[in-house]
Amino acid sequence: LESGHPDEIQTAASSYNAADLADFIEYTGAEDDAKGLALLQSLPADQQAKVFGYIEPDMQKILARLIPKGALAGIVTDMSADERADFFNLLDENQQHALFQSLASREREDLLRLASFEEGTAGAIMTSDYAVVSSGMTVASALSLLRNTAPDKETIYQAYVVDKSHKLLGAISLRNLIISAPGALVDSLMATGLVFTRTDTEQEEVARLISRYDLLALPIVDDDERLVGIVTYDDAMDVAEAEATEDMHKGATVGRLDTSFKTASPFSLYRSRVQWLVILVFGNIFTGAGIAYFEQTISAHIALLFFMPLLVASAGNAGAQSATLMIRGMATGDVTTRDWGMLLGKDILVATGLGLTMALAVMVIGLFRASPAIAMVVSITMVTVVLMGSVIGMLLPFLLDKLKFDPATASTPLITTIADVSGVLIYFSIATAVLGLG
Amino acid sequence: LESGHPDEIQTAASSYNAADLADFIEYTGAEDDAKGLALLQSLPADQQAKVFGYIEPDMQKILARLIPKGALAGIVTDMSADERADFFNLLDENQQHALFQSLASREREDLLRLASFEEGTAGAIMTSDYAVVSSGMTVASALSLLRNTAPDKETIYQAYVVDKSHKLLGAISLRNLIISAPGALVDSLMATGLVFTRTDTEQEEVARLISRYDLLALPIVDDDERLVGIVTYDDAMDVAEAEATEDMHKGATVGRLDTSFKTASPFSLYRSRVQWLVILVFGNIFTGAGIAYFEQTISAHIALLFFMPLLVASAGNAGAQSATLMIRGMATGDVTTRDWGMLLGKDILVATGLGLTMALAVMVIGLFRASPAIAMVVSITMVTVVLMGSVIGMLLPFLLDKLKFDPATASTPLITTIADVSGVLIYFSIATAVLGLG
Repeated sequence: LESGHPDEIQTAASSYNAADLADFIEYTGAEDDAKGLALLQSLPADQQAKVFGYIEPDMQKILARLIPKGALAGIVTDMSADERADFFNLLDENQQHALFQSLASREREDLLRLASFEEGTAGAIMTSDYAVVSSGMTVASALSLLRNTAPDKETIYQAYVVDKSHKLLGAISLRNLIISAPGALVDSLMATGLVFTRTDTEQEEVARLISRYDLLALPIVDDDERLVGIVTYDDAMDVAEAEATEDMHKGATVGRLDTSFKTASPFSLYRSRVQWLVILVFGNIFTGAGIAYFEQTISAHIALLFFMPLLVASAGNAGAQSATLMIRGMATGDVTTRDWGMLLGKDILVATGLGLTMALAVMVIGLFRASPAIAMVVSITMVTVVLMGSVIGMLLPFLLDKLKFDPATASTPLITTIADVSGVLIYFSIATAVLGLG
Repeated sequence: LESGHPDEIQTAASSYNAADLADFIEYTGAEDDAKGLALLQSLPADQQAKVFGYIEPDMQKILARLIPKGALAGIVTDMSADERADFFNLLDENQQHALFQSLASREREDLLRLASFEEGTAGAIMTSDYAVVSSGMTVASALSLLRNTAPDKETIYQAYVVDKSHKLLGAISLRNLIISAPGALVDSLMATGLVFTRTDTEQEEVARLISRYDLLALPIVDDDERLVGIVTYDDAMDVAEAEATEDMHKGATVGRLDTSFKTASPFSLYRSRVQWLVILVFGNIFTGAGIAYFEQTISAHIALLFFMPLLVASAGNAGAQSATLMIRGMATGDVTTRDWGMLLGKDILVATGLGLTMALAVMVIGLFRASPAIAMVVSITMVTVVLMGSVIGMLLPFLLDKLKFDPATASTPLITTIADVSGVLIYFSIATAVLGLG
């Protein structure tokens, strides 16, 4: 591809996939913008838009500044409606204005409509390139309509049947159309009781519906139940992957990253990490203060310090386990707030079992390493803190959800910090009660 | 549905989705097996297999014991090839034998072939219900072939073109077929340079390919490049979701759960959690031993204890952040082992920045709370441990990957435990060096 020979470029363009070509342009463009641009422009016109849609937002922005206005308008016109809207939202106001001027009115209206939806909703990720047939059409005319409009549609494998006011009545698959009698009416063949949702539905929910019902595409309707767009399975896969990544990052108190880890700048990585690290330092001051408060007990029984890390860490680890089970269950839709009571009961049962197992282990260590009295303190503490850690890990995600925060914020480090301070207080309180101040 | 009136059941069956009907049967069956069975059997024959495929493995097992042998054979025959193989693998040997006897030879062979692949590979999740046309066919005959075989196929939207020895030559979409001239040869229209993979490819990699290239289905070939199956996008979505869940659970040291968190028994939850909790307790003994080793320094400067939790926790938190960024990047295929050097360099830069920021914060606290000497010890320790934590968090997933372990095992609690012991040693070593033994 690098050679620039038209023949070789044609060969490469036909034998490589758009996603791979996009990767190659990104890779080349990262070293030399102009070279990346040249590669993109050397592709056949009909492939440029498709490949451009696969390029990462950062590189799209760089290329957008370099591509001549007319060529950019051509690429943007050929892009699918949802990718076009995403790209449009990346640009600054001047660029948006310039691009907008150079588009045809059909693409303009489309852009305005799609760009008006809030980020992260069904409206923002849907495409308006869906296939539609009218109620009352025959199979033959529906097929010929689909055949003629196929090049502009995201998918024609699922066509939606609408009435005169564009209200969604049902769906008919291309599979069904091609095996049915040409004279039959689409109304008699269409599936009703469709799964659909509204433009303001969150994108995670959209992905969940598509995955649950194994849909090719999910129709999106407005407040009057008129069909306004579809979200296809491939966009749902991207949403689900991005959500899982975001939840995992939250689970380690990593803030939002706009690009991937590999391409993120050191400063954006710093920014995504520093906030929580500092907050957690202040949380740990309470743990330090807890230790300082019990200095007398500790000085009298310095052997207690040996067991502090394992008790406190066990509380945090048990809490992290419960929280993660809970958060992931809520994210996949497996667990709802209705299940609260049942799950808490089960968690208390499991945590008691875990606490007793661990108490037994540390009692043995306590007997060997210190005294029977300390062994007793350590085992009582273990049962208590494992139970406490688990219950906190269980309740915090629920509580955050009730308060309209993302449950995934109840991350392992946050649970650990809360468990640390509670663990220290419980440990030394029990120790002071059993052993006295020395 | 519960009323049992045939009319109402027909209405319900046609207006509810198979996934919802399956949920309802699971819900009813959990309270009363026989009632769940009655519901399933009250559905029209053609829907029973589809709904049964959506039912959770545990309930499938229960129902399989109750359904009369003949009826079960009917359902199993109607199931898609991949769901049938999954179900077959759930049964014990006697049941497998009985079921096998009652199937037709076509389904038997299919089962044997699919059941022979190792779990977690492309072979185990693929279906043999793919649409295939022969090289040399015209568009018209390909269309009529697809039309006639449509009911048995998982998807006909993508048909694969094979030669006489069933070698994969290319693919042609139904979209392309219906817009092309009936007399054209499929060979002239088919897409070549297909993305495909082998039966022993890991299922995560299959899901990644489907998501990356926005495929409807990924063709799977054997060692001689003969087409043996396809994996469709909906199965890829399920795999990606299950993998993300498993990775998150590993990130909190939760072991493999065979069912969802909600339906898991207390004992299976206990088992999935206890192992790592106990291992981590033993890890923390080293931290305790580290503290015990420095008892003299601690006794002389008891104020040091106040800062211990925040220093040690910061190391763990920074490590958890780096590890999570790394692990998720590796899971999504964004980061490969080739990027090792570049990412380590970037991480050291970011961690140094983070360490300096946090050192500044704790220096202020140290000056207020203790002495300039302790403030100095605390800030030097902070930079050192944050850097160390980040580098460990970065390297451990790489190392595990090189040793053929799953990088996701480098969980937050594991990193925290390693950071704890290193943090304690570094802190008190620096303190002893700067402050002396008192």
